[in-house]
Formats: sequence, structure tokens, C-alpha cells
Amino acid sequence: MTISNTKWVLKSRPSGLVKEDNFELITEELSELNEGDLLLENQYLSFDPTQRMWLTDLPGYLPPVQIDEVVRSGGVGKVVESKNDAYQVGDLLTGLVGWQKFCQVSANVLPFFRKIPDNLPIPTTMNVFGSTGLTAYFGLLDVGKPKEGETVVVSGAAGATGSVVAQIAKIMGCHVIGIAGGAEKCQWLKEIGVDDVIDYKEENVPERLTQLAKNGIDIYFDNVGGPIMESVLFLINLNARIVMCGSISNYTGENLPKGPMNLTMLIIKRASIEGFLVLDYMHRADEAYTDLIKWVEDGKIIHREDVQEGLENCPQTLNRLFTGANKGKQLLKI
Amino acid sequence: MTISNTKWVLKSRPSGLVKEDNFELITEELSELNEGDLLLENQYLSFDPTQRMWLTDLPGYLPPVQIDEVVRSGGVGKVVESKNDAYQVGDLLTGLVGWQKFCQVSANVLPFFRKIPDNLPIPTTMNVFGSTGLTAYFGLLDVGKPKEGETVVVSGAAGATGSVVAQIAKIMGCHVIGIAGGAEKCQWLKEIGVDDVIDYKEENVPERLTQLAKNGIDIYFDNVGGPIMESVLFLINLNARIVMCGSISNYTGENLPKGPMNLTMLIIKRASIEGFLVLDYMHRADEAYTDLIKWVEDGKIIHREDVQEGLENCPQTLNRLFTGANKGKQLLKI
Repeated sequence: MTISNTKWVLKSRPSGLVKEDNFELITEELSELNEGDLLLENQYLSFDPTQRMWLTDLPGYLPPVQIDEVVRSGGVGKVVESKNDAYQVGDLLTGLVGWQKFCQVSANVLPFFRKIPDNLPIPTTMNVFGSTGLTAYFGLLDVGKPKEGETVVVSGAAGATGSVVAQIAKIMGCHVIGIAGGAEKCQWLKEIGVDDVIDYKEENVPERLTQLAKNGIDIYFDNVGGPIMESVLFLINLNARIVMCGSISNYTGENLPKGPMNLTMLIIKRASIEGFLVLDYMHRADEAYTDLIKWVEDGKIIHREDVQEGLENCPQTLNRLFTGANKGKQLLKI
Repeated sequence: MTISNTKWVLKSRPSGLVKEDNFELITEELSELNEGDLLLENQYLSFDPTQRMWLTDLPGYLPPVQIDEVVRSGGVGKVVESKNDAYQVGDLLTGLVGWQKFCQVSANVLPFFRKIPDNLPIPTTMNVFGSTGLTAYFGLLDVGKPKEGETVVVSGAAGATGSVVAQIAKIMGCHVIGIAGGAEKCQWLKEIGVDDVIDYKEENVPERLTQLAKNGIDIYFDNVGGPIMESVLFLINLNARIVMCGSISNYTGENLPKGPMNLTMLIIKRASIEGFLVLDYMHRADEAYTDLIKWVEDGKIIHREDVQEGLENCPQTLNRLFTGANKGKQLLKI
């Protein structure tokens, strides 16, 4: 029996927001599986800012998506055919499944997929109980090293990663200032316990930061890149840690703005900026999940998923991250 | 007996290079010493880029020099009068002696002065056997953490700190690329064993860095700030360390240029930028001096001092650091 797959392939490198004609939705017959391989039927796709960077030809931590290649993205698929004894039909796997209905997983890339537990709602395994949660956990705790009473600023604070960072910082006893765009997001951040919120669409970020960070800034968890860094640098305390997690403002690769004029503050304050990727922490995932599951059960971490529907809506769904339309972790149900 | 002191006081905050009329050379009668105090007759003054920043009213790790205050600078003075049993007439002390003939040291600031050993030439105690050497030693070894075979780029490589950094990196078995301005400095760097040299006044730094750092850059020891950072960031290896030691290009506080557009490279490469000040390492000075003295004796570290003369020449001497006229550590003999 031949199976026909529907998939989005890249046709041209987008500039700014993606347009539907940067891609093409094509149908193809799938080849037979080899020994050791699996066929997944994708259930959910995960949308992350980093995906947008994979569509550029800038240097990155993964090679760019090539023209005519399926668009790379995370997601969850269900095994519908298995030539690998370790996997049964019906198993749910998370990994880079791509914008497509089916995903053939060859044995050599299987180590980059992970079975997800039966007892968790699938969307949460791409959010707080997935890479997003791990990013927040290790980025804040391992790189940022928060101490009780410190002031933590989080940009993109209402986003999937940012909101978990902000709540873990609260659990650690920090004063948390969240920066987000729009009244709904800011209101939600207050509801989940963030101490102070700045609406960057309505307020003057440098002024508000100066008012709110009365004791200076000890940690800046940067999910967005761009000019907030400069405002933060003017306010950092001795031995401050800036955790660079994401740089959504630069991911389109167009007209990269210059950086902060005041990096010299790092010398004056013996402070650091450190970039990190969750990929380097995957071997410690269980350690994080133990805490994260407990914190969610205890109501200390609130999470939300924004679930769009229909494979045909992938391009618009990706743009939601960059227009700020998403309310929580952006997913798409196929 | 009253003693009359001659000193340079700040009259106006300079813009760009200092001008003689930003200062005034005045004479004053010194007051009597209190119990516990010392009177030093200054022998040598040390000129360091950081002094220029103290003349601005930008935030810094020390407060700005106030108008009508003596210009702050390091140096070495000889005790000519002592009301403190721990110090004898004839002892040599190094500390912030200022642009003046005499320096009254009150008991409360004595902990910030240090006796210098008899067996070292005085100029070296402000260079490789002084803060400059400590800066190079701890900045490279503690913050940069070089490993054998790594590529280390040093800006301001022919300067007092940079040249010691470059040579310690060679001792550690690294491939060293030095950036300096002018043929004489570049030639000297080759003579002291730096592997590759870039003359930023004559060559295209980004192009040359790309050619020379064939295996990428593991450590960038930044003595100058400014645009080299951006060129370096494009070439960093996984887990690269950028040590921010100085930012001479920004010390005048005028028209601060924007920073690197590509800080996102820190994420891609899981790399860091860390600022440091030698002040935080003074308690470990002996550990460094043991190595530094041995390395100089063994001919593994070559140092040179550029000694100007005459208190009246302080302003021009400070500018030598910013025009690049100095050949090695800038000093002035009074």
C-alpha cells in the first residue's frame, strides 16, 4: 500500500513575516520503510521562533532549510507503521517532524526523537513538559543562577518560555519584572504572579525599567534580542547575569540592528552575557521534568497553549509568533 | 616646615582627547600630617586608559574625578615623612597617587597602597609586576580559561596589558592573533612571539581575522571595545569566551557607537562575554607575581615601558594612549 503525504516545502527565503508563496503545499507518495524505520502520522506541530531563523541562510546551530525541503519544525506524531522493535504502532513521539501529514523517521535520526508519556496531555509535551519547559528551567537555573531576593527581568515574558522563566524565578524568591506586548498578555502575567509588568507596546521600556528595578537588575533573561538589552545594561548590578535565550527580533535576518552601545557596563559591573541552547541540556531532561511536573501540579506554574488547526494554516501560524498574536505556546493540530 | 605641592586639577570635562586647558597646574601648601598618615614624594605616574573614563561623568566602578580635584592616577611614591610605624622614610609605595608632586596618604586609604619590593626596577612594578600584569594574568587565565591549541585574539595587543596577555596565551600553547596599530607595534609583536598580527590601521580587520582564524576563535581578549567585537562574533567557536577588559574606544564618553549586530552568535555558539576588573583579584596577587616573575626571568614574557618625563607633561602623556603613540606601558617620571 502506498501512502500519500502532504507537506509544505520551502520555495524561497522569506523576508520579514513569511508569505504563503514562500512555500508550496505538495503531495507525494511515500517510499517503503527500511528496517529500523518508523512512519509517524503527525498530530500536532510546535511553532518556535527559531524555526524562522532556519528559513534564512544565516549561520545557525542547525543548517538552513534548503529550497524544496520540507519546512523543519518540532511536533508530535503517532507511530502508524514500525519496522523497529523498540516502537509499537500507537506510540507517541516528539521530535523534528516537519510541516507535513506524515513523517518518515529513519533509524539514524531516531535518537533525536523521544517517546512522550501517556499520562500528559499532548500539547503540554511541546510546552512546559517539553523543550520549552527545559529551556526555561536550565536557562534560568543553570545559566542565570537566581538567588532569593534578586531582581529578574524577562523579555517575551508572556511567551511559552518567558512565562515559565518568570514563574520559576518567583519560585526561587526573586522579584520578577516581565516585559510583554499588549494589555491581554500583561494582565495574564499579573494573574500568574509576575510582580511588575511592562507593556512594551504602550510604555517607555527604559523609563519603566528604571522605575521598577529600584534595586538594579541581577538577571536578564532575554527571549527577544534587540534594544531592551541596552536599557537593561544601564541598570545591572554587580555580577549580573544576562541569559541570551532567544533573539526573535533578529530571526528574519533582514536589516539586523546594531547592538547595545554600553557593553562597557559589563566591565564596570563584572557582569556577563551568556548564550545557551537547550540542546546541550537534553541529557538532564528528567531532572527538570521532575520539578516542572511538581510545580504544575502544585499550581505554581500556569501554562497555556494556543492551538490553531489545519496543516494548510502553517505559514500564518508561524507569523503569529512574530506579530505577537499567540497567547501562550503556539501549536497547530493537524 | 611647610611643603608646597604642585598638582594638576580638573577644570572642565574633556571631550575626545584631553586638552591642556581641561586642567590647571596649581601650587598649594600642604597641611600637617595626622597620626597614621604618610607623605609620599611621587616618583613615577602610571597612565592607563581607565583614567580617561574617570574624567567623564559616566557611571563607572569609581566615582568621577570632581572639578577642582587632583587628577586621579596610579603611580609610585617614596615616603618622605611618616606618622605611621609600619612605614619608614624611603619606602616605595604604589597606589592612586594622582598627578602631583606629593601625595598625602591618610591612614584610611593606606590599605589601597602597596609596598613595592626593592629588587624590582620601579617602572616594572607599574607594568608586568603591577596591576597591568595582574590584569593580563587573571583576565586571561581565570576568565578566558585558555586550553592548549585554542585560538586567542587580543586587541590592543601591543599595549601594556595586551602584550602580556598575548605572551601568556603563547605560554599556554595557544595560537595567538594580535591586533595593533602601526608597523612598529606589529613588528614588535612578531619579535615577542605572537603568531599572527593584524595592523588595524593598514589592514581590513574582518577579512584578515577570517583568513588567520582558520579554526575559528576560542577566546577574544578585548582591550579596546568597539567594532572588532562584531567581526570576532562571526568567527567564534562553540563555547567561546570573550573577555572584556577594556574599552578604550569608548572612554571619552562622546558619541558612543552602537554595539555588535550579531550578539545572537552567543546563542548559536553557546558563548559568553564577561567583563572583569583586576580590583576583584588583588587578594590573589602573589599567586600571579610568582608566575609572572618566573616567566620574565625565563625570557617568556618581554615587557617594555614608555617613560615620559616632567609633571608638566601629564595631559599630553595621557593622550599618547589614545593616539597610540605609546610603545608599551605609558609612564611618566617626575
